Amino acid sequence: MSILIKNTNILTMVENTIVKGNILVEDNLITRIGEFDFEADEIIDGSNFITMPGIVNAHTHIAMSLLRNYADDLPFWPWLTEKIWPAEANLNEESVYWGSMLSIAEMIASGTTTFCDMYFFTEETIKAVKETGIRANLSRGLVSGEEEGEKLQNAINLHNEFHLKDEGRIRIDLGPHAPYTCSDDYLKKIAGEAGKRDTNIHIHLSESKKEIEDSIEKNGNTPIEHVNSLGLFDHPTIAAHCVNVNDDDIQILADKKVNVVNNPSSNLKLANGFAPVNEMMKKGINVALGTDGPSSNNNQDMFEEMHLAALVNKVISNDTTVLPAYEVLKMATVNGAKALRVDNIVGTLEVGKHADIILVDIHNPHMYPHHDLIASLVYSASSSDVDTVIVDGKILYQNKKFLTIDIETVYKKAQKASERLTGDKNEI
Amino acid sequence: MSILIKNTNILTMVENTIVKGNILVEDNLITRIGEFDFEADEIIDGSNFITMPGIVNAHTHIAMSLLRNYADDLPFWPWLTEKIWPAEANLNEESVYWGSMLSIAEMIASGTTTFCDMYFFTEETIKAVKETGIRANLSRGLVSGEEEGEKLQNAINLHNEFHLKDEGRIRIDLGPHAPYTCSDDYLKKIAGEAGKRDTNIHIHLSESKKEIEDSIEKNGNTPIEHVNSLGLFDHPTIAAHCVNVNDDDIQILADKKVNVVNNPSSNLKLANGFAPVNEMMKKGINVALGTDGPSSNNNQDMFEEMHLAALVNKVISNDTTVLPAYEVLKMATVNGAKALRVDNIVGTLEVGKHADIILVDIHNPHMYPHHDLIASLVYSASSSDVDTVIVDGKILYQNKKFLTIDIETVYKKAQKASERLTGDKNEI
Repeated sequence: MSILIKNTNILTMVENTIVKGNILVEDNLITRIGEFDFEADEIIDGSNFITMPGIVNAHTHIAMSLLRNYADDLPFWPWLTEKIWPAEANLNEESVYWGSMLSIAEMIASGTTTFCDMYFFTEETIKAVKETGIRANLSRGLVSGEEEGEKLQNAINLHNEFHLKDEGRIRIDLGPHAPYTCSDDYLKKIAGEAGKRDTNIHIHLSESKKEIEDSIEKNGNTPIEHVNSLGLFDHPTIAAHCVNVNDDDIQILADKKVNVVNNPSSNLKLANGFAPVNEMMKKGINVALGTDGPSSNNNQDMFEEMHLAALVNKVISNDTTVLPAYEVLKMATVNGAKALRVDNIVGTLEVGKHADIILVDIHNPHMYPHHDLIASLVYSASSSDVDTVIVDGKILYQNKKFLTIDIETVYKKAQKASERLTGDKNEI
Repeated sequence: MSILIKNTNILTMVENTIVKGNILVEDNLITRIGEFDFEADEIIDGSNFITMPGIVNAHTHIAMSLLRNYADDLPFWPWLTEKIWPAEANLNEESVYWGSMLSIAEMIASGTTTFCDMYFFTEETIKAVKETGIRANLSRGLVSGEEEGEKLQNAINLHNEFHLKDEGRIRIDLGPHAPYTCSDDYLKKIAGEAGKRDTNIHIHLSESKKEIEDSIEKNGNTPIEHVNSLGLFDHPTIAAHCVNVNDDDIQILADKKVNVVNNPSSNLKLANGFAPVNEMMKKGINVALGTDGPSSNNNQDMFEEMHLAALVNKVISNDTTVLPAYEVLKMATVNGAKALRVDNIVGTLEVGKHADIILVDIHNPHMYPHHDLIASLVYSASSSDVDTVIVDGKILYQNKKFLTIDIETVYKKAQKASERLTGDKNEI
């Protein structure tokens, strides 16, 4: 199977420029980029599109789509303890499957080709990933308490069974939820298991101010100092949030080459604060971008996150030159791939890489006139400009239609599953 | 001519609730809302849509669409003096017409039915408003210096000729640019002319920190104290920005019933700061929402502004309950209409009001499951969910197609006009 994207505007994310040309995909790989002729099985006219690497959503909890717009504008603790946790207590295999399918549809339609997830009933999310054709790093959420051993064993089993299977589209990471929900012993045990398997650790760190205060009171140090003292950062780590960090924290993250995931919508909506992205980048930290779960966002729109990251970091730095458009696009592609340790196969458009490619429409009112199209992707574009999505050489979405998802069934099943969790009956 | 929107999810913006029902439009008015039968000329199936009042973009400079993505990520002063001003020096009637047409297309497609503009060659924007069928408050930008008298006379002539013409779709306001570009005498003169005609003043106030420092150095008071001392606020005023305001400023704005327009994207992108929207609202100030010009945003997407206003004000207030979804929707509809003094005819869906109505698609992945649809409009929706737009009883946009605009011609002409202003040649 070969796909030729013809006469398109190519943003490889290797260089800060857009050039006219063709891209050839053969089987699951990019085999040519430039000016050439080829008789491909499928030809896509790319002239009205920017053709760029698929977006990497580096932190989310996709099955939480079922709780989207269920409980908003509430104080954080009542939201979590009176609304989200009681609803989550009703989760089962079926709900996680349909919640995953709904989110994967949303992600594909908005240009995300790889996501990094932490949640429960991970087998169901794996099933949805396999069926839809998207790429994912998945980790089963691990918290201390009853059955913590069984949970870790489940995570290890998932790793043994699914890691790097399906042409490498699925990676299994280990997901200790956070230092405030995992005991020190548990964190050390998880770190040890990650080390044995050379897989990533995916964890929440320094999200809320309360988390920092509690950590200092309990441990005498910050969450980042604390998990570092436990040896967690001796293994490749994906650290979501890192909002409330001090200079010492940033130095540790830099020294230990921790990958940070910025989630601006969630951090703002939950009033947790502004992550010092520019300060972290200046120290050489790899900062990726994520949406966080769709119940604290409330979507999985990475174009919105790019826009927000660019704007927020300018105003908090009091400097309009901070986080220019190309740097933000790197967060959402190259840096995400690096954080997830899939940058050897995706994150840029290069000959030999796996074909994770999106086509973004530039033929609409908000994208005209055409000046700096790289700026237009961050400052003007909307995720609805995504027209075509290819993952691992397979077209998943074309002319804004799903090719691997029966979307009407997903709507119905997700609505029903959501009503079972919340007890709310849809009146609309 | 009658239009029946059937079996839809109605958000009137009179009450914080969505109810199932029908809406009847006869000629340019809403004549029935509820459960009823009617043999209308045109029937729209509204079952997959939220039907709500058209959005009011309360501050922009629409013809600046031509300079969108032309000069980003630069320091403010080089951006303005080396890029924007030299390009604007090449403006003529034709460029303002095509820049206006492009922006009006963008606004209609994203659900904006009324906008409030300040710019030059206003006759050309008026022509575009008349042709496309959108609603607008327009003011010719006024700055002191050579020909200031002629400029004011031009504004007065526009008022005499166009104010409340075209079934009231066009209002002409007076637009002194800012206290730092208008002399005290000129501001007093403009205020006097606004008073004689009982029309609005549209002005930029307290946008950048530098503006405040300069005002204190020059006048010994803040821009808001200063224009108040000149009597400007004795007339209905639309004050864009009000970012860098102190408690005394806020008290003046409240006492004088000044309408404030929050422009979060622009304020963040230009690193001007966060307007204290919640503080202003608590004092009873009417706060509307705007995009500012598309060269400092870089789009005119009011759904993006709603999202940003909700999120930013939560985090700066350290309170997740601040600016709940319905309040933000009010900013973008009712409050905007009130600021522009068109709330007697638009801003809500009520029998007897002019039919400015939009249909927002809820049948897509990011809007499922359906729980709180009011929250979904602010936290999950994208402007591309807008499917149908009616202004003054006329359908301007349906099934995402323009009915009053030849969009391909607009793209070509706007691209060409833009290249003439900037000297940049489009390579794409």
